[in-house]
Amino acid sequence: MNEPNIDAIMQVGLGFWASKTLLSAIEMEVFTELAKHPEDLDTLQGRLGLHPRSARDFLDALVALRFLQRVDGRYSNTSSTDAFLDKRKPSYVGGILEMANRRLYSFWGNLTIALRTGELQNEAKGGGSNFFAALYAEPETLKGFLKAMTGLSTGVNRLIASRFPWKNYRTATDVGTAQGDLIVQVALANPHISGIGFDLAEVAPTFEDYVAANGLASRVAFRAGSFFDEDLPKADVIMMGHILHDWNLEEKKVLVRKAFKAIPDGGALIVYDSIIDDDRSQNAFGLLMSLNMLIETTGGFDYTGADCVGWMKEAGFRETRVEHLLGPDSMVVGIK
Amino acid sequence: MNEPNIDAIMQVGLGFWASKTLLSAIEMEVFTELAKHPEDLDTLQGRLGLHPRSARDFLDALVALRFLQRVDGRYSNTSSTDAFLDKRKPSYVGGILEMANRRLYSFWGNLTIALRTGELQNEAKGGGSNFFAALYAEPETLKGFLKAMTGLSTGVNRLIASRFPWKNYRTATDVGTAQGDLIVQVALANPHISGIGFDLAEVAPTFEDYVAANGLASRVAFRAGSFFDEDLPKADVIMMGHILHDWNLEEKKVLVRKAFKAIPDGGALIVYDSIIDDDRSQNAFGLLMSLNMLIETTGGFDYTGADCVGWMKEAGFRETRVEHLLGPDSMVVGIK
Repeated sequence: MNEPNIDAIMQVGLGFWASKTLLSAIEMEVFTELAKHPEDLDTLQGRLGLHPRSARDFLDALVALRFLQRVDGRYSNTSSTDAFLDKRKPSYVGGILEMANRRLYSFWGNLTIALRTGELQNEAKGGGSNFFAALYAEPETLKGFLKAMTGLSTGVNRLIASRFPWKNYRTATDVGTAQGDLIVQVALANPHISGIGFDLAEVAPTFEDYVAANGLASRVAFRAGSFFDEDLPKADVIMMGHILHDWNLEEKKVLVRKAFKAIPDGGALIVYDSIIDDDRSQNAFGLLMSLNMLIETTGGFDYTGADCVGWMKEAGFRETRVEHLLGPDSMVVGIK
Repeated sequence: MNEPNIDAIMQVGLGFWASKTLLSAIEMEVFTELAKHPEDLDTLQGRLGLHPRSARDFLDALVALRFLQRVDGRYSNTSSTDAFLDKRKPSYVGGILEMANRRLYSFWGNLTIALRTGELQNEAKGGGSNFFAALYAEPETLKGFLKAMTGLSTGVNRLIASRFPWKNYRTATDVGTAQGDLIVQVALANPHISGIGFDLAEVAPTFEDYVAANGLASRVAFRAGSFFDEDLPKADVIMMGHILHDWNLEEKKVLVRKAFKAIPDGGALIVYDSIIDDDRSQNAFGLLMSLNMLIETTGGFDYTGADCVGWMKEAGFRETRVEHLLGPDSMVVGIK
């Protein structure tokens, strides 16, 4: 890979311009509006509530960034933004970016402070409550967050559902299940699997709606509990998707040991995250996600496949493997 | 060009992570420190004042983003970051990014408000004073800004100095000269040219230091004045680099007319900016720069080559051409 020249330095250094432009477009529902039909500048400006000074530059910037098309003066979505950024489609992944726009963009403004102090920079800054406590206390915010997590994870969840050798197993527990998409995708692709989504009680309504909407109420159930205060629900396979990176080293090891305890001999633990390459020099997204854990949590961090394999070996797993999934995400599988 | 898939959507949407990471690295002088010699994690962490929780992820993220290298546990600059982001080198371009980190990152957090209201979102928000008035009132801030502008422009300035047919002309005025790099580069490359840097009186000390340091005091002089309140100093060639985009349509036309008045028949006006392609669908940086003018000014905007040619024709220029320079920047030349 080539190193950055002066253009690349400027492009990344001012990269927040393009980033915030896309985030504002999602916030203003540009793509949801254009999913109905292409529109000209005047109509779109009126419907979105854009000021005449800024409307054309904003929309044309989205064209030049390849998030919109413009043909004969009429703007339309690209096929990707139509699929992924139209709020009314189930394939919408904008939830995580709405959250980034509403919260993370400004919290990351304090990155230098976080780098100097090692302290989180989100709502919990200076106070006693942590991010998850604040999040779970507010039903609407929580629901938004849980859906956002689904948007971020569903591609990977489908891969795990199809690629993992599910024929060797009958039951699975999804730890920190959120809306339940991982266990839902596994159950949809593998009719012989029944499963449990394990998360705090506040998650139940969102989880149960989603499971019912996928016609899986007979095979997929919710179990309320804290994965630190209680044993994990026993199953052939324990799964943790985008969970382990939220916690500090000791907490990570506790979770891996609890998973070991909850599965039978021959059972499996599947951990996935934006797992960093062992040399820590390639997966920029995974390393930046770890800085996001610095901003969001008291001790969380992302980790390499070798790190996770080490914790699994220490807990007693006899066999492990690291498999790349999609984009920045990989999974680590441990067999007891 | 391919349209974004889900990865591209996430990469741009969360692009402020990489952007802010680079900006914090510049703020913390990572590259200036490593320009001295490569250093291991512990040494670098101590010297930069990084917290142990974040140091390794931060530095390895910079490695994965190709702004640093790591060999046998020792971090070093790439040749580009060594040249362009070491504060002690004259080739340092980080000033503009220091300014982006200190000001623009948070102002851009209000992009949606700017898009809805058409109103600027910087220090001048809600108040009477504009950005330039605030800037010029504070000598140290002003000096930093003027140097930052040089970093951003010097590559383009050198191109104009070598590529424009200077042999046909003897004098030049650089309007809104700032530190004076454009007229300095032109005078350095063309010993027969003498020139004037025209800007507000507060700029004089910074300009005169820079001209003297380049050994040009005998051929390049400063003229104090406002380009709206006064006539432009007469010359064979009038130049405006990264100036026209700061102003609204009527002000832009005034400046083009004033340039026409200040040159003889056969004289030239050179305007450069991140000029947008005529179809407004390719130069994303130019369109985003125009949104930056929305954030920073009351009426400024970037424009296409055709727009600028139109204003020049209207002012009476008989011949015009648009030439790409470097990266996002092009120049428009008008001949009287």
